[in-house]
Amino acid sequence: AKIVVLPGDGIGPEVTEQAVRVLQVVARKEGHSFAFSERLMGGCSIDAHGVALTDEVLADCKASSAVLLGAVGGPKWDDPTAKVRPEQGLLGLRKGLGVFANLRPVRVHPALVDSSPIKADRLAGVDILVIRELTGGLYFGQPKGRDTRNGAERAFDTLEYSDFEVRRVVELAFRLAKGRKKKVTSVDKANVLESSRLWRQIATAIGKANPDVALDHMLVDTASMRLVTSPATMDVVVTENMFGDILTDEASVLAGSMGMLPSASIGATGPGLYEPIHGSAPDIAGKGIANPVGTILSAAMLLRHSLGLEAEAASVERAVDQAITDGCRTGDLGGKLGTKAMADEIVKRLE
Amino acid sequence: AKIVVLPGDGIGPEVTEQAVRVLQVVARKEGHSFAFSERLMGGCSIDAHGVALTDEVLADCKASSAVLLGAVGGPKWDDPTAKVRPEQGLLGLRKGLGVFANLRPVRVHPALVDSSPIKADRLAGVDILVIRELTGGLYFGQPKGRDTRNGAERAFDTLEYSDFEVRRVVELAFRLAKGRKKKVTSVDKANVLESSRLWRQIATAIGKANPDVALDHMLVDTASMRLVTSPATMDVVVTENMFGDILTDEASVLAGSMGMLPSASIGATGPGLYEPIHGSAPDIAGKGIANPVGTILSAAMLLRHSLGLEAEAASVERAVDQAITDGCRTGDLGGKLGTKAMADEIVKRLE
Ligand SMILES: CC(C)[C@H](C(=O)O)[C@@H](O)C(=O)O
Ligand SMILES: CC(C)[C@H](C(=O)O)[C@@H](O)C(=O)O
Repeated sequence: AKIVVLPGDGIGPEVTEQAVRVLQVVARKEGHSFAFSERLMGGCSIDAHGVALTDEVLADCKASSAVLLGAVGGPKWDDPTAKVRPEQGLLGLRKGLGVFANLRPVRVHPALVDSSPIKADRLAGVDILVIRELTGGLYFGQPKGRDTRNGAERAFDTLEYSDFEVRRVVELAFRLAKGRKKKVTSVDKANVLESSRLWRQIATAIGKANPDVALDHMLVDTASMRLVTSPATMDVVVTENMFGDILTDEASVLAGSMGMLPSASIGATGPGLYEPIHGSAPDIAGKGIANPVGTILSAAMLLRHSLGLEAEAASVERAVDQAITDGCRTGDLGGKLGTKAMADEIVKRLE
Repeated sequence: AKIVVLPGDGIGPEVTEQAVRVLQVVARKEGHSFAFSERLMGGCSIDAHGVALTDEVLADCKASSAVLLGAVGGPKWDDPTAKVRPEQGLLGLRKGLGVFANLRPVRVHPALVDSSPIKADRLAGVDILVIRELTGGLYFGQPKGRDTRNGAERAFDTLEYSDFEVRRVVELAFRLAKGRKKKVTSVDKANVLESSRLWRQIATAIGKANPDVALDHMLVDTASMRLVTSPATMDVVVTENMFGDILTDEASVLAGSMGMLPSASIGATGPGLYEPIHGSAPDIAGKGIANPVGTILSAAMLLRHSLGLEAEAASVERAVDQAITDGCRTGDLGGKLGTKAMADEIVKRLE
């Protein structure tokens, strides 16, 4: 299997290095052969090529089995009004690969409950899978731009969804729910948005066609409360791109540190894109202290979703769990282990 | 002063009744004269007139000094795809009154820290004022609708802001920050949205013109984390309509119960609109057990912002604080007091 690695900026290279190591250990143990090729994307690509994602790199990614990504962005390229920006690479990659569903599981390791700002009694049993629509909505809708109207400067974005865009991501949510608690919460703002009314209509129809799965609809404002007040009542949550961006970052606080959380972005066919949900963390970049767990768990998702290696994926997840149970902690969790030392502990525990 | 009362649906009538009582007590004590007139808006107006807000009621509101609102909506009118919906009344009222700034203060009473899902150490000193833009953005942007494109059904909303819409609400945030900690956090998604780039550009310019106020920009996904992980570091937060909807509901969990929180919606001139941030809570409607504090504190904001009665506003707020300190609690806070009994305790403490 060919895996393209996009270390990106900030702590990206440090954490992807360790995740690649874990994949190499898995390959050796289980007799697989993974070929890694590293490419530039994000700020580093802007510096080298003037754009955040070159056509060549995108072509390489498309021709791979899976893409493992660190993080993009940093103070050097931080002007959001600049013409060329690191996150254009990320958005171009998502769109280019057609990975319309971003899976963000949020589990709370019992040993990390103390690190969370949420009280322990609310965290018991939390096991949420947020599925964020990733290639539509406000991020990509057209028109998007600026003009002048009656002498006033005006800027606009378009939140648009076509029926098939909603259908494929909600159907995926139902499919995944069948392997879990058979419960889907579809989050929208159907009392205000036309796009949400279409979303709800389609979700309702899919719900009717899948009577073995319990579907409920929740308004996004309510969901932003419930994620904190009663996270254990949520299982599979499916929502549009912008709402998903906000809600998954919010949900990450449950786990005690963003550094713990992985994500997988998948399409109908073709390679998936795997990345931790944290950013490039410029404040700690280059110090070797970033938590590699989010990226290592993203690599586990890569094994599962792109390579079909469920047993291997589960063994990586168990090794991470065991390391945390045994008290291994990076700085974000109040511990002393560096990036490499934390990965060492995980590698040690790979059966 | 003429005050239009719109009790609305669900628990709305129960909580507005108590807030009106508090205003009457204030009037009597301080020698003011308030004339209340009650009107239909929301589901009850749909039942009586076929629309959620009649032109007559809007005209009454416009001709008043202030509008006090309970809540709208309920299972009876719960189909978000229906042509006529309760929240159209609320949105029409906001737009009709031109109340572009929705002030949502979030304070955590020290005696209620146990009711919050957030750990006590994070709650110490929390005193946030979220200012949500209320008459623009995704809620009102045009075009908004449905069509068919290449055989696919498509639905769309427009997130649009004109420079003056951003300027007036951010300027208000700066004005209010000067009476507080001189700190403004402007929340946007400038790395993705054109409308956010305009927002950030204008906020930056206003920041430069007000060097005595510290301005920082925060992405909405980051803000959704920080509100839970480090709420005490935030003071005045200003953001667009949809982000504000999500973030204020999220922030409400800090206070232990949504039932505690008030809001004021104000424009450049004309009457303000005052409402608790909770909804119509159909599950407890008619039982006399809803928490009236959010509405009573909204009435205090009415005294302050629409009637210029700062001392009276502060005395209501002190009475609420004292009642909570003394252990008075409605059911949402684990107590036994009903709506009226809770209001009695507050009235008793009005100096
Ligand atoms: C960097 C940014 C464009 C991106 C997004 O908003 O999708 C990030 O916040 C994320 O969640 O992956
Ligand atoms: C009822 C709904 C339209 C409204 C909104 O989204 O503004 C509510 O959620 C609020 O926050 O006041």
